[in-house]
Amino acid sequence: MTRSWWGWGRLQEALSEHEIRELESGVATLLPGHDLTDHPPPDPAQLGLPAPRIAPPAALAALCSTDPVDRAGHARGKAYRDVVRNLRGELDHVPDLIARPTREQEVIDLLDWCAHEGIAVIPYGGGSSVVGGVEPRFDGPAVTVDVTGMGAVAEIDRVSRAARIQAGALGPVIEDQLRPHGLTLRHFPQSFRFSTLGGWLATRSGGHFATLYTHIDDFTESLRVVTPAGVSESRRLPGSGAGPSPDRLFLGSEGALGVITEAWMRLQDRPRWQVTASVAFQDWDSAVAATRMIAQAGLYPANCRLLDASEAFLNAGTTVAGGLLVLAFESADHPVDPWLDRALEITAEHRGAVIARRSRDTASPNDASANWRSAFLRMPYRRDALARRSVIVETFETACTWDRFDILHASITAAAREAVERICGTGALTCRFTHVYPDGPAPYYGVYASGRWESLVAQWDEIKAAVSEAIIAAGGTITHHHAVGRDHRRWYDRQRPHPFAAALRAAKSALDPAGILNPGVLIDS
Amino acid sequence: MTRSWWGWGRLQEALSEHEIRELESGVATLLPGHDLTDHPPPDPAQLGLPAPRIAPPAALAALCSTDPVDRAGHARGKAYRDVVRNLRGELDHVPDLIARPTREQEVIDLLDWCAHEGIAVIPYGGGSSVVGGVEPRFDGPAVTVDVTGMGAVAEIDRVSRAARIQAGALGPVIEDQLRPHGLTLRHFPQSFRFSTLGGWLATRSGGHFATLYTHIDDFTESLRVVTPAGVSESRRLPGSGAGPSPDRLFLGSEGALGVITEAWMRLQDRPRWQVTASVAFQDWDSAVAATRMIAQAGLYPANCRLLDASEAFLNAGTTVAGGLLVLAFESADHPVDPWLDRALEITAEHRGAVIARRSRDTASPNDASANWRSAFLRMPYRRDALARRSVIVETFETACTWDRFDILHASITAAAREAVERICGTGALTCRFTHVYPDGPAPYYGVYASGRWESLVAQWDEIKAAVSEAIIAAGGTITHHHAVGRDHRRWYDRQRPHPFAAALRAAKSALDPAGILNPGVLIDS
Repeated sequence: MTRSWWGWGRLQEALSEHEIRELESGVATLLPGHDLTDHPPPDPAQLGLPAPRIAPPAALAALCSTDPVDRAGHARGKAYRDVVRNLRGELDHVPDLIARPTREQEVIDLLDWCAHEGIAVIPYGGGSSVVGGVEPRFDGPAVTVDVTGMGAVAEIDRVSRAARIQAGALGPVIEDQLRPHGLTLRHFPQSFRFSTLGGWLATRSGGHFATLYTHIDDFTESLRVVTPAGVSESRRLPGSGAGPSPDRLFLGSEGALGVITEAWMRLQDRPRWQVTASVAFQDWDSAVAATRMIAQAGLYPANCRLLDASEAFLNAGTTVAGGLLVLAFESADHPVDPWLDRALEITAEHRGAVIARRSRDTASPNDASANWRSAFLRMPYRRDALARRSVIVETFETACTWDRFDILHASITAAAREAVERICGTGALTCRFTHVYPDGPAPYYGVYASGRWESLVAQWDEIKAAVSEAIIAAGGTITHHHAVGRDHRRWYDRQRPHPFAAALRAAKSALDPAGILNPGVLIDS
Repeated sequence: MTRSWWGWGRLQEALSEHEIRELESGVATLLPGHDLTDHPPPDPAQLGLPAPRIAPPAALAALCSTDPVDRAGHARGKAYRDVVRNLRGELDHVPDLIARPTREQEVIDLLDWCAHEGIAVIPYGGGSSVVGGVEPRFDGPAVTVDVTGMGAVAEIDRVSRAARIQAGALGPVIEDQLRPHGLTLRHFPQSFRFSTLGGWLATRSGGHFATLYTHIDDFTESLRVVTPAGVSESRRLPGSGAGPSPDRLFLGSEGALGVITEAWMRLQDRPRWQVTASVAFQDWDSAVAATRMIAQAGLYPANCRLLDASEAFLNAGTTVAGGLLVLAFESADHPVDPWLDRALEITAEHRGAVIARRSRDTASPNDASANWRSAFLRMPYRRDALARRSVIVETFETACTWDRFDILHASITAAAREAVERICGTGALTCRFTHVYPDGPAPYYGVYASGRWESLVAQWDEIKAAVSEAIIAAGGTITHHHAVGRDHRRWYDRQRPHPFAAALRAAKSALDPAGILNPGVLIDS
């Protein structure tokens, strides 16, 4: 199995010819007149990358690769704009070296060398950033430190339900190693198969569960982080009130304050009971109101995903007038039917019609949620096939309090539609809630538009700027779970309180005095 | 109603003669031979406090008090050692001025003046610190900024269930203003009546609910903080992944980074359904195991308080062999009997015997939980009466993962008993879990010992040092919900990762370049 250097996942898992024909037929319906010419990726060995500007000291040479395909494959993340630039062979910033430490001391030695020489360091997990978080978008040499060589579940504490996991562990490796113990981290971002614990922690990743346990932050018991100023290790604690949380400074630090090497993570018993239901609503406002009531009811559904009519039609193959709410409750401890019963009382009060309900043992091999998850995890491959055919297909997301949602949603929708029409002529916009909190939803939008091969990135960037302005103006966050990176930076700077920026800049100076860590991300040195 | 300058709460609410006789009789049983001589508080006007060393500028003079009783009443918090020192008239460090801003601009002006003059500022809410957090334990002048003049619920968002609340709002004021809207902050630390939202936020306060919503951190939607470097205001967001959380830097900052002036707080609907049960266990290990299973079952009880036999006997008047587990489930949305049923299945598997169970409408005026809460809230008055009679009565608390609990508990218990016996001769130790998490409990200990009036503080300090050493050595936190202040500082410094200390010091330098904010707390400038 070969990792794609230019796009998502593995080459062998790309869409089949049949799937591509289906996709093209869908595009022809959605975006009539679109030019479906396929633009296959260039040969990465023929891209003529500049030679590395730096050479590692002898003691570190064995960890470092200068292979052009390796360097091209680590040059950026997996955002739509990254994939398109790769397809076009536009690799203007490429790391000089890829270093692959296999133990923490090697991370320390790499940082020591880079700090001494003033070489930028880009911490790199699965490389699935969609915000330019791993791209050396600056002048000067860069070493990308790929930590996937440190990828094991190192220790399991069955009594406390926690595990010490190395930062480079990919999602499936973590679950495979926990499964024999009846445990799960139960954190399933869309990037699950190709992203790492360290990446999740550094970006405050959101999993696919809707309530309660969503952001990786809440699963974090303690962190171990290599900084140029020393190794920071917090105590394993279920809760503490001893000063500001050390972990919360590193959670979301996006490689700018240190390299996370391992963490004790809170686990859960593997679910035994699950009940699911799908509810169709006649109008969007009722759907939103019902979803809010469930979010505020203290029921804590595992899934509470509200799809608007476009999202339901395009991605769930279901026609609804107002919205489709997908509910699930799970437990390792007890049947959860009373929970779903109550949630469905709430949807009924809002004239929601139950179109499916099932209750089953999640141990069964043929598992609807697993099927859905597999389709969900396959979406990036579809995205890549569409990118090759000049379709703009990208997402953006935010969160806001319930009181502001109607205005924010209207404003974002208007901005997106206006931008798509102006820039592309034709396109579609979808919305779903990926997560719901008692005080607000996290709406997630999909854009599908007819692009032009010559200007795909510029077109998307213009749409993205328009919707980002709308988000920031309406009081949302520039990202609920995709991180800031380099792509969100200018809106993040407006969202972030100025005194906090000053504190973060000072913290960075203390931890990274040479300013080598992921320059341009979050904060300038 | 008059606030006590030397002890807890209001003078008019102190123990009655009858209650004192009962208490004395209890002490005679528990600590035979103890000298029960009463040492009433001195007249604060006769303490001969040194004159203020500073005078405010004319523009701020109207906000400032130099009244000796006012200064004595703000000189320290309400720890046992604070009360005893007050009773002995030992007021070695007293703020020079008490400033009472009524709006944010006055806080800004006060900080400007103090930064310019190099005067220390102690942010002060209800003054209920039990860790020396509000005591000017340093040389040089100090202004205590009492924010209780900014004490209103300023705005309510019923849709998102959130309120903008000023930092100086006391617990009952908050609940009184939310009640007509059917809402509650539902945060009830023991200090509830005499502590403020700002104090809760600055110290990462824990409420009396056992799971899920415990630390004030999780209720915080956004913060507004006046720092010498400017006002920091975060966006109201239900969740965000945009860099390290700005709020989490200020939560637990204990007045060392800024003065919190207001916050948007997440609220809940007032509970309508409640079921409670008490379960007696034959042995402590089974009680702990059952409690852990409930904490890991995803049931999220409102109360899950495990009392050891001494605690059950002394503070709940119940005789049990191994432990008493007090369970409660509440909801504003639905009956919660299935939740309690499942929890009691778990306790039955551990041979727990249900000794009481009731289900009731919490709207009923005569409410067991309200009664319990009222007794719980009254404990500090008993503490004060005992302090006057040379009884050492103080608590300490920690948290740890389940796998370490047995060893930590044995180690703490041994250290406490050895210290009490060595220092006091006779005494008792109790333990309860105040909070339980899926990955560990927060054990809370009570010490009752026979002290000598001449050396009460030194005796307690020696016991406290012994148990603190045991906590830190066994991997616990020096505080789960009492903050660090000045009293926990030396153990906190050992618990905190060094690189995080460097980052925090740098953040403080950026926000408080003159180093005026609460010197000695958390970090040195």
